[in-house]
Amino acid sequence: MELGLKAAMNQVAEDVDRAFDRLLAIPADPRRSLYEAMRHAAIGGGKRLRPLLVRASADLFKVDPACSLRVGLAIECVHVYSLIHDDMPCMDDDDMRRGRPTVHRAFDEATAVLAGDSLHALAFEVLAEPETHADPFIRAELVSELARASGPAGMAGGQMMDLVAETETFDLPTVTKLQQLKTGALISFCLEAGAILGHVPPEGRRPLRGYARDIGLAFQIADDLLDVEGQEELTGKAVGKDANAGKATFVSLLGIDRARSQARMLVDQAIGHLASFGAEADLLRAIARYVVERDR
Amino acid sequence: MELGLKAAMNQVAEDVDRAFDRLLAIPADPRRSLYEAMRHAAIGGGKRLRPLLVRASADLFKVDPACSLRVGLAIECVHVYSLIHDDMPCMDDDDMRRGRPTVHRAFDEATAVLAGDSLHALAFEVLAEPETHADPFIRAELVSELARASGPAGMAGGQMMDLVAETETFDLPTVTKLQQLKTGALISFCLEAGAILGHVPPEGRRPLRGYARDIGLAFQIADDLLDVEGQEELTGKAVGKDANAGKATFVSLLGIDRARSQARMLVDQAIGHLASFGAEADLLRAIARYVVERDR
Repeated sequence: MELGLKAAMNQVAEDVDRAFDRLLAIPADPRRSLYEAMRHAAIGGGKRLRPLLVRASADLFKVDPACSLRVGLAIECVHVYSLIHDDMPCMDDDDMRRGRPTVHRAFDEATAVLAGDSLHALAFEVLAEPETHADPFIRAELVSELARASGPAGMAGGQMMDLVAETETFDLPTVTKLQQLKTGALISFCLEAGAILGHVPPEGRRPLRGYARDIGLAFQIADDLLDVEGQEELTGKAVGKDANAGKATFVSLLGIDRARSQARMLVDQAIGHLASFGAEADLLRAIARYVVERDR
Repeated sequence: MELGLKAAMNQVAEDVDRAFDRLLAIPADPRRSLYEAMRHAAIGGGKRLRPLLVRASADLFKVDPACSLRVGLAIECVHVYSLIHDDMPCMDDDDMRRGRPTVHRAFDEATAVLAGDSLHALAFEVLAEPETHADPFIRAELVSELARASGPAGMAGGQMMDLVAETETFDLPTVTKLQQLKTGALISFCLEAGAILGHVPPEGRRPLRGYARDIGLAFQIADDLLDVEGQEELTGKAVGKDANAGKATFVSLLGIDRARSQARMLVDQAIGHLASFGAEADLLRAIARYVVERDR
């Protein structure tokens, strides 16, 4: 990993952990285990790729890092809630996540449902508070865009398509749409959020949208490759699940070699979208390269 | 039921159904069953008490009914999502709701998780959009208050306490706190939202907060009484569940007679908070009386 990227990643991971620690302070009443479950899932571990993307995008427009951190924290709340629910027995039925027992294994299923729901609500609470941005118009736009990216027209809709993929065979355009909803929408929001915080009007956000779409797909292809080729010790979760479930993935549809070259092509294309930015976009360029080179 | 209340209730129920029908238009792709599951849970049936409370509160301050309807719709999204998740086997394990199979029975558990998560996100999308109120400051405040009322410091926290109540014996103050979080926080937000929409500053919202606290508790005591004395044909769900689960409730702690008189006292007290309002608060007064007289 490039040195500058590594430093930025570590810094953001540390900031997000500290922010979660404050957000999830354990109350002295019977809700204790709810907060412990949220902390179990949210603190420590995780690449914090989404908060890093918000920071890198916001930095382009000289946004106060305290603001981009809060938006990154909100997105990470949504990301972690979705992992908790997705790991449940009725969904992906995973026992391990980031090398630790999943929430429904470490606690129980009911607590997992409520911990996910709680983090989901906290995401919007964090976004809507004045500390996130002084301008309420910006805060309302962030809320509306995050809700769209995570709801049935975004992440949750993609997860539904993923369920259907267990029984129907999807073609490449449908798998692409599935992934654009399931992981792409939230990644796109990360980049968009930096621009929203920086008061960039919608028409000025086009390069970032192109970048987001390309790295989102590249990220998913890399995930599919890790599912086939990855090592459980590194990924911290079970591998080979999609193939075993008979789901169509980029790898099953394209084959390993074409999938890998497609991912590399998307990274080049993503970096191409950043041509109008100078050296201040180097972090985004490094992230694009990292997305397909990572081993977990 | 009083005639004016009945008319207002029918009107709001019709408005909410129509709004859900638009919000949940079924897309022509594999997300179809996700939307069908949301529609199954959200459309038709339900007292729509929460949207009615928003309307009644907002009407005091001459708020455009289109705005209070959108806020009511958002709260109903949260309410319905919480019912879907709460009915799941790992939570309350209910097969029937409003006289129909619950979502995980009519569809499956994974779809129930995602339908709940989707409605949860839609709640905030609806609130944050400019149609809800022209002033973004108002929209951001609505989001932040709904998130607080529904998250771990509100409804989800109360549901967690409810889980703990299955194994620990709570005293009256703890049961009261449980209920204030589980159902009271969202009911309080309904009243608060009307005032927020009407630009009423926090210090002017005190009477409505008092009213909300009192009817919230009265509502819960009435629910506990229905669980003991109600008829399944009317309530549309299983009765006697709390008593069978050995949970402390207002009825188990106070006995039926004291619980009933306590509920009536709370209703009088709630109506007392409205003394500074004239006839324009008659709907709120009728709702307070209805809350303890209802049979479902």
